[in-house]
Amino acid sequence: MNVLIVYAHPEPRSLNGALKDLAVSHLTSLGHEVRVSDLYAMNWKATADAGDFLKHPEGERLAYARASKHAFAGGTQSADVVAEQEKLLWAQAVIFQFPMWWFSMPAILKGWVDRVFAYGFAYGVGAHGGERWGDRYGEGTLTGRRAMLSVTIGGRPPHYTDRGVNGALDDLLFPIQHGIIYYPGMEALPPFSLYMSDRLTPEQWPAVAADYKARLEGLFTDAPIPFRRQNGGHYDTQQVLKPGLAVGTAGTRIHLLQPGEPEQAPLPATGS
Amino acid sequence: MNVLIVYAHPEPRSLNGALKDLAVSHLTSLGHEVRVSDLYAMNWKATADAGDFLKHPEGERLAYARASKHAFAGGTQSADVVAEQEKLLWAQAVIFQFPMWWFSMPAILKGWVDRVFAYGFAYGVGAHGGERWGDRYGEGTLTGRRAMLSVTIGGRPPHYTDRGVNGALDDLLFPIQHGIIYYPGMEALPPFSLYMSDRLTPEQWPAVAADYKARLEGLFTDAPIPFRRQNGGHYDTQQVLKPGLAVGTAGTRIHLLQPGEPEQAPLPATGS
Repeated sequence: MNVLIVYAHPEPRSLNGALKDLAVSHLTSLGHEVRVSDLYAMNWKATADAGDFLKHPEGERLAYARASKHAFAGGTQSADVVAEQEKLLWAQAVIFQFPMWWFSMPAILKGWVDRVFAYGFAYGVGAHGGERWGDRYGEGTLTGRRAMLSVTIGGRPPHYTDRGVNGALDDLLFPIQHGIIYYPGMEALPPFSLYMSDRLTPEQWPAVAADYKARLEGLFTDAPIPFRRQNGGHYDTQQVLKPGLAVGTAGTRIHLLQPGEPEQAPLPATGS
Repeated sequence: MNVLIVYAHPEPRSLNGALKDLAVSHLTSLGHEVRVSDLYAMNWKATADAGDFLKHPEGERLAYARASKHAFAGGTQSADVVAEQEKLLWAQAVIFQFPMWWFSMPAILKGWVDRVFAYGFAYGVGAHGGERWGDRYGEGTLTGRRAMLSVTIGGRPPHYTDRGVNGALDDLLFPIQHGIIYYPGMEALPPFSLYMSDRLTPEQWPAVAADYKARLEGLFTDAPIPFRRQNGGHYDTQQVLKPGLAVGTAGTRIHLLQPGEPEQAPLPATGS
């Protein structure tokens, strides 16, 4: 299978660099083909602007989403953006390797998302009407692919538990796992998270590597996070979760299939 | 009072630009002093790397947090970072003006946070011991300041309600409002959010402007989001919310003071 690793760390000799190298070697040894987008080494342009569109007339007002739509449709996106889109289409799985900075991804990786996830490619896809609000959240250009965050975290595990002071890791990653991975159609695997990353000792590395290898071995078989499909009958015409679903839960978790719920919720009776 | 506007949009003639201009003129007319960090116009360097530290030896392994700590303590941060820190210290309120892109801030603004929120300035502040885990979440260098997100959103309001398909706006903004604003000590005001921003007509602008002016007039008086202070007695020595607090709620909302709860929770009895 084909695996793309999008890697965002300024220091090759970092823990993130080691995890990226381990993923390359281990996935290759398992028979997969691996490509790496090393954003720092590529000097990736993080800032979305008119330069992303080859034919944006100088001096014309820039509406980024509209310009993205026209450039994607017209084949006038900048070459670096096109190259990343082609890698995504080539891949059957995507790993995002990054340090958690300020409870999200580093700017250089956010800028990869902002620029590569173009209108017509990652959003603005599919028809609208009734309960269908385009192809997103489980459907879209990247359907059939899997993605996993591999994230290093400076803090301690209890701080990220359900009642930890930083917020639950699942809540902090929801904008990424649901909003960036699942939105254009990829299934999100549970994250590989490594805490207290600044204090990892050489003696601890073999156990970390073994854990990560196990996750890499499950890349195509582990169960993904069971987000509800937008067009699976769960959301109404206003894109609001229907009554009777996720009763007794709250927060981002309501968007997970609850135990016993079918992936395809019953559609409402005609006229309801 | 002194207000800093951190503004991240590539097009001056955009809705974001209009909101920024309105804030400058209205706050000035109210007697405040206003400064603007126009990140696109400044060509702000979004990507955190060794170039942020004047004395990082070439070829030396970069541990970003450690390098940040030494550079902040030693006065060897890059000049653009120091200038933004000085603006934050000058300000009594900060407004972040940006479009929501992929359920978070644009990369250029994330890169402002990644680089300006240095170790010793915005994190790594204060002593640790017992229930005290440094000065953060309500305490820190930026204590006494207020901050507000002014965010434009392409989607529709129902999609961002408590049961909306995108996730509740409060949950999506939690990593920013709690993790970036409140962490170094600023109080977070409820966001000013403008939906369907790509479809705003000139006829709708006066009402939007009136709404925003009202929020600007409340910048120093509106009640902030009632996040729990880390060192307010709510969290135990593992930084986990104590039993008996936020019963019946879940998700990011447990970090809000619940109705009737005192800001300073009772400290546990000695020896407990």
